[in-house]
Amino acid sequence: MPGIVKERLFTPGPTPLLMEAQLRALSATLHHRTEAFRRLMKETVAYLRYFYHTQNDVLIFASSGTGAMEGAVSNLLSPGERALIGTAGKFGERWVGLAQAYGIEAAVVSAPYGQCVPVEEMKRQLASAGPFRAVFVQATESSTGVSHDVKALAEAVRALPETCLVVDAITGLGTTDLRPDEWGLDVVIGGSQKATMIPPGLAFASVSEKAWKFIAQSKLPRYYFDYAKERKNLANGESSYTPATTLVVALHAALSYIKEIGRENLIANAALHAEASREAARALGLTLFAAGSPANAVTAINAPAGIDSGVIVKEMRNRFGAIISNGQGTMKGKIFRLAHLGYYDALDLFAVIAGLEIALLKAGHRVQLGAGVRAAQEVYLRRQG
Amino acid sequence: MPGIVKERLFTPGPTPLLMEAQLRALSATLHHRTEAFRRLMKETVAYLRYFYHTQNDVLIFASSGTGAMEGAVSNLLSPGERALIGTAGKFGERWVGLAQAYGIEAAVVSAPYGQCVPVEEMKRQLASAGPFRAVFVQATESSTGVSHDVKALAEAVRALPETCLVVDAITGLGTTDLRPDEWGLDVVIGGSQKATMIPPGLAFASVSEKAWKFIAQSKLPRYYFDYAKERKNLANGESSYTPATTLVVALHAALSYIKEIGRENLIANAALHAEASREAARALGLTLFAAGSPANAVTAINAPAGIDSGVIVKEMRNRFGAIISNGQGTMKGKIFRLAHLGYYDALDLFAVIAGLEIALLKAGHRVQLGAGVRAAQEVYLRRQG
Repeated sequence: MPGIVKERLFTPGPTPLLMEAQLRALSATLHHRTEAFRRLMKETVAYLRYFYHTQNDVLIFASSGTGAMEGAVSNLLSPGERALIGTAGKFGERWVGLAQAYGIEAAVVSAPYGQCVPVEEMKRQLASAGPFRAVFVQATESSTGVSHDVKALAEAVRALPETCLVVDAITGLGTTDLRPDEWGLDVVIGGSQKATMIPPGLAFASVSEKAWKFIAQSKLPRYYFDYAKERKNLANGESSYTPATTLVVALHAALSYIKEIGRENLIANAALHAEASREAARALGLTLFAAGSPANAVTAINAPAGIDSGVIVKEMRNRFGAIISNGQGTMKGKIFRLAHLGYYDALDLFAVIAGLEIALLKAGHRVQLGAGVRAAQEVYLRRQG
Repeated sequence: MPGIVKERLFTPGPTPLLMEAQLRALSATLHHRTEAFRRLMKETVAYLRYFYHTQNDVLIFASSGTGAMEGAVSNLLSPGERALIGTAGKFGERWVGLAQAYGIEAAVVSAPYGQCVPVEEMKRQLASAGPFRAVFVQATESSTGVSHDVKALAEAVRALPETCLVVDAITGLGTTDLRPDEWGLDVVIGGSQKATMIPPGLAFASVSEKAWKFIAQSKLPRYYFDYAKERKNLANGESSYTPATTLVVALHAALSYIKEIGRENLIANAALHAEASREAARALGLTLFAAGSPANAVTAINAPAGIDSGVIVKEMRNRFGAIISNGQGTMKGKIFRLAHLGYYDALDLFAVIAGLEIALLKAGHRVQLGAGVRAAQEVYLRRQG
């Protein structure tokens, strides 16, 4: 019997949708060149500042997150200027690809998949191999489930008046405590299909005063992702090109919900789910791919010896309608990933762990049923009381 | 921290909604006196016949289930005729109240809450205390979580040409194997907010040829719930009074989904969840309120000694947003009920059991965390492989 199987996303984007936001979007028939839409845009930007924990400008683009990442490169740099890139996964490699695409020479500090970008090595490069116009890094590398020490890196970059720090926080926002203003994160990139609980289609970029000065001087070509043009239009609640109106309506509703529950609680929620998933994995005799500095956004777990992680992913999908992620690139077949970004609650957590126990069993791993759930429940009780 | 808490219904109606059906209803702007709506009504009735497992007429009323129950009394009987009622819970008592309201003398065969209506005693009454124009009973009594032996009762009634059997299957349909045609269930009552996965507002009644003969002779007053008038109109895809159009659209979509997964699988799904919940309760040191003949629709569990079931219900709601039911009437504070009607899948099951473990712990009951989930997982593996 197949019976009833509900589709549930446990992927690091797209993530479960906030239905209230979807319904709001569904019923919206706004034209974007109206006072009502301008008011909505301005309110949405105010909400985004709350979500980002910043007083900086936050821009909104109709694109996926990569578009705003590209904009960070093309708006900050000029031909001949150099960049420093920290990479330890597929998304770090995207910075390298973007720099190449624009002919920017980059010094790359890398770490093996599953480890952190070595901030001390980046500091040495900053001190000895500069000048660098910009430093690019991820807050959390969702291909490996690693969290980077953005705060320590920011401390080093802040002291350099000719260098900006750009953070891809697409899966970091809403899962990790980030302080753009306090720490000095000059450009912080976000995307809609992550902790903001709505579908893909919008990218965000917060931009510091320091970054705006760089942008005014930079000479790389850009058009759609022109940060300064977008800032000017956004001041009036406008966008340079047709905005994705229904997504903006959904974003407004979702950020209003996030403000209601509190951004700190949203982050604590992801932290609880991540810790509980790690404890559950250990209780089930599994090891973590990113043991050193695991992210709250997503937990990467090594498949048991001799078992292809794809089998576990498939069991989860076919049996339970639960979509979890396989590893990417060379990690494919070796790890699987459970996401904790955004709209998950305690019952979602217990459910996915219980399902995982059965999927592991079916894949040939010896499991004591209920042991993973118990470990997750204990973390819940420790954190929630 | 409160954090993210999703609302989830585990009550024996309303039950979780099938979102596809809701969206279909949301976008419907049908007028009911149109060819499109008539076609929709006819298709919906065909789907209802599949869902009911019957070739009989199935009527649809804009009312809650009680309306169609009232119709069964007012359409089948005449002043001076007598009824036999089997009751072992709040819904059985509703038949008694309905008979009283229409001045129908009823012989009542009752059993204590938590037990079955004694079918042997009802057979004796049929043989010795008749004639009865109609016999009224529940397929499943959702106030106590008991399933009645409708098949055995039908066997006795079928032999009596002057007696009809009326079954309140509001929570029985889609959770219990019922065969109106094979067994001879003359009128079977259903409601929309149950296994059909849509909101409250529609009632159903299947009517056998035998029942139509009784209806043609009956003389009790009726107007809104006039079965014969409704049958005549429904043959043309019409309804006697304004139909609840959006609910009919939702019903059409939900029954189409049910046909796709198969009514047998829908019933097997409820049976799995019920068995797993009973095993989980036992593993957590709890006893069942209806141990003898438990229903698939809903599991009634005794609160641990010294603990008010309301505390458990409240913990589930406040901590996890999970709405479970307290006992009704004299059972209030003593039992709590978990429903399995309709749109639940395996992950819902594991989630509610994991939440229940924590709620029990918080209410002061000693619980081995994960033990209930493990019991449920074992039932899942036994049934699903």
